[in-house]
Amino acid sequence: MLTKKQYQEYVNRALEYYEKAHIVLTQQEKDSVEVVDWGLNEVETNGLEIITYINTDRVCAKEMVLFPGQTCAEHWHVDTDGMQGKEETFRCRYGKVYLYVDGEPTENIKAKLPTTKTTVRHEVVLNPGEQYTIMPYTKHWFQAGEEGAVISEFSTRSTDETDCFTDERLVRATVIED
Amino acid sequence: MLTKKQYQEYVNRALEYYEKAHIVLTQQEKDSVEVVDWGLNEVETNGLEIITYINTDRVCAKEMVLFPGQTCAEHWHVDTDGMQGKEETFRCRYGKVYLYVDGEPTENIKAKLPTTKTTVRHEVVLNPGEQYTIMPYTKHWFQAGEEGAVISEFSTRSTDETDCFTDERLVRATVIED
Repeated sequence: MLTKKQYQEYVNRALEYYEKAHIVLTQQEKDSVEVVDWGLNEVETNGLEIITYINTDRVCAKEMVLFPGQTCAEHWHVDTDGMQGKEETFRCRYGKVYLYVDGEPTENIKAKLPTTKTTVRHEVVLNPGEQYTIMPYTKHWFQAGEEGAVISEFSTRSTDETDCFTDERLVRATVIED
Repeated sequence: MLTKKQYQEYVNRALEYYEKAHIVLTQQEKDSVEVVDWGLNEVETNGLEIITYINTDRVCAKEMVLFPGQTCAEHWHVDTDGMQGKEETFRCRYGKVYLYVDGEPTENIKAKLPTTKTTVRHEVVLNPGEQYTIMPYTKHWFQAGEEGAVISEFSTRSTDETDCFTDERLVRATVIED
């Protein structure tokens, strides 16, 4: 549970990172930044900030912010409403992203293990201009380096409500109290 | 027909616009800029410069450059290989875009009519941070303002080879001579 004031503080902080990445946003977009905490109320370490540019039946594009060391929890995308699960490409625009996906585990991974449960350890490091494509059902989690990160996402339709999380405590909706 | 030298000069010029828009690119991407002239050899006025980030069976993302006053010729996207035609969202990152689509014609449009044939006149002006979504079969053409433009495209699979052009002189492939 976040207070409205806390929520707005995280929004403002996210906007600073979009600015560092020279991402131009409309006022409407600035007002629509979504702060995700999966109900844990540990946004600083376990969370993600998102602007959704477009999400139609076929295409979705988002611009995401991770604060320094902040982790997006391990999850995967499943078939939804008879449509194939979400396929997504992450493109690093600013900072550094430590991304972990299904596959041969990497020894001595660079990220700090988050307090949420993770199982995959195949490391992909994304610097600005670098990108990686994740197919449906591929488990993944990712963490920003010490400068934070701004990540463009190009994907099929986003249906966050059907995302599956490894850590069963997690829920997708952020709860805001007055 | 463009010489290799001319082609490289247009690539270099496009790279300057990506830089103005603060788009970070890998060397491989810089080496892969595509200069499109539809066989007209009038790149300065009728052309488009493209970097394709990703193009899978389901998702495509491109970063496009238009030089000042340069026009992308009127075309539309049709069903291909049993799949629905391409749906695309243009997001202006830098400069100004005058976009024309099917619909109520706008009086006194801001673009200069290109030398290629155009039929649609419904005007949408995109400044940085603004975007517009074009559904399959919608005729469209677009032109940069006097500062040029950088445009992100988020779309379904791109199948340029099946694009239909209003001006029957146009072909999709750029011919480069030694």
